[in-house]
Amino acid sequence: MAKQNIFDNETFFSEYQKLREREVNANNLFEIPTLFSLLPDLKGKRVLDLGCGSGERCMDYVKRGASKVTGIDISEKMLAVAKSENSDEKITYLNMPMEDLGSLEGEYDVVISSLALHYVEDYPGVVKNVYRLLCEGGIFLFSQEHPLSTCYSGNGDRWTRDENGMKIHANIADYCVERRNDSTWFVEGIQRYHRMFKTVINTLADNGFRIVKIDEPYPTEELVKKYPEYYDLYHKPDFLFVKAAKNTVAV
Amino acid sequence: MAKQNIFDNETFFSEYQKLREREVNANNLFEIPTLFSLLPDLKGKRVLDLGCGSGERCMDYVKRGASKVTGIDISEKMLAVAKSENSDEKITYLNMPMEDLGSLEGEYDVVISSLALHYVEDYPGVVKNVYRLLCEGGIFLFSQEHPLSTCYSGNGDRWTRDENGMKIHANIADYCVERRNDSTWFVEGIQRYHRMFKTVINTLADNGFRIVKIDEPYPTEELVKKYPEYYDLYHKPDFLFVKAAKNTVAV
Repeated sequence: MAKQNIFDNETFFSEYQKLREREVNANNLFEIPTLFSLLPDLKGKRVLDLGCGSGERCMDYVKRGASKVTGIDISEKMLAVAKSENSDEKITYLNMPMEDLGSLEGEYDVVISSLALHYVEDYPGVVKNVYRLLCEGGIFLFSQEHPLSTCYSGNGDRWTRDENGMKIHANIADYCVERRNDSTWFVEGIQRYHRMFKTVINTLADNGFRIVKIDEPYPTEELVKKYPEYYDLYHKPDFLFVKAAKNTVAV
Repeated sequence: MAKQNIFDNETFFSEYQKLREREVNANNLFEIPTLFSLLPDLKGKRVLDLGCGSGERCMDYVKRGASKVTGIDISEKMLAVAKSENSDEKITYLNMPMEDLGSLEGEYDVVISSLALHYVEDYPGVVKNVYRLLCEGGIFLFSQEHPLSTCYSGNGDRWTRDENGMKIHANIADYCVERRNDSTWFVEGIQRYHRMFKTVINTLADNGFRIVKIDEPYPTEELVKKYPEYYDLYHKPDFLFVKAAKNTVAV
């Protein structure tokens, strides 16, 4: 099973760093605030971050009171940034692909993953390992590219625009064809997996998780006034969030 | 709150009857088989059917061993058909809109609703009442128009076609704008509500339901060979199914 390490690609890495340095981007405006809004109370909690990248979120979790944070990532380059910029005695960074979670031991109260699971082929394997690593009542919170984004087939335009160039609708094809569906993002051939909504949810339910909340964030009216280009998120959201609990007893 | 009784419209009623009499339609090919595949064992179970229409499903549930079936529907015309064509001593038909479920008493093991909930504005009200009417461990199973269908805004084409008239993608707009979004189906102004995926799921989770399984049926390859026009369901499924359990104790 192919494990992708795109963040160790020189071109990708430098372009990605530039994107993240822009003050206004979809991550800052929608992804991070939604992730924070769904976080449980982290005081005294043991947190595992899957695909921690350069460790900004690990540091956030420490600031929110986590007693211990373990960040894993496949990319040595990203972890080098993490260790230099987001180091803390409560944080441990491990160079490990998510596909190798089976070798991780320990118990966690909260497992979080931000925009990484759509790069992983063996989603059921990750879900099973997260369940094993969580304590009773533990929370699994993740974001991924929205299924309406991962299904984009790349042949033809992703959007239909009016005569002024405004996006009037998203062109959705093959939503029901689950597949590896590579995308171009700075470099060609970003390995990405399209899964239907039902697969994202059923894999959790089938493996013992209780679905707590789902989110598909879109901009506020205020934000669209300020950045009209983000109206396209009303047509097709970029991100899907799922919060699930390992509840083997009554809730 | 407006309660829609479109099935008592003369034109709609006769056109609808003709559609259902066609041997091959989306209901026969996808909706009914998926509903049956998700049904729990009904032997000795008390079943409530919300929006039972002409009662075919109520009769199916009796055949599958249900001890008692209650079918409710807003349409007197549909219930007249039900009483004449699908009558059984185990079935009780009640002329009642789903919005009035609060006045229903009793306890049920399984509550089922086939393609009716998207007509109802007060979805949380129905969910709360279903929870109240279910026994511990009881199942709520429903189908509705898929959110990618209910979001269709009606201005412009629903599909983009190639030069041979084949549908190449669905035109998806305003998925994130939840609203009453009337459609034309035999008659104009069919009152229909668009809810995002997250709202369908979160309303259940927030009211105590555990999500058991979701389905978004699409045709098999074999079926597409026989009826090529149904390939469009790979682009955009017509139906969403949700199976949820009232689990207040461990599962």
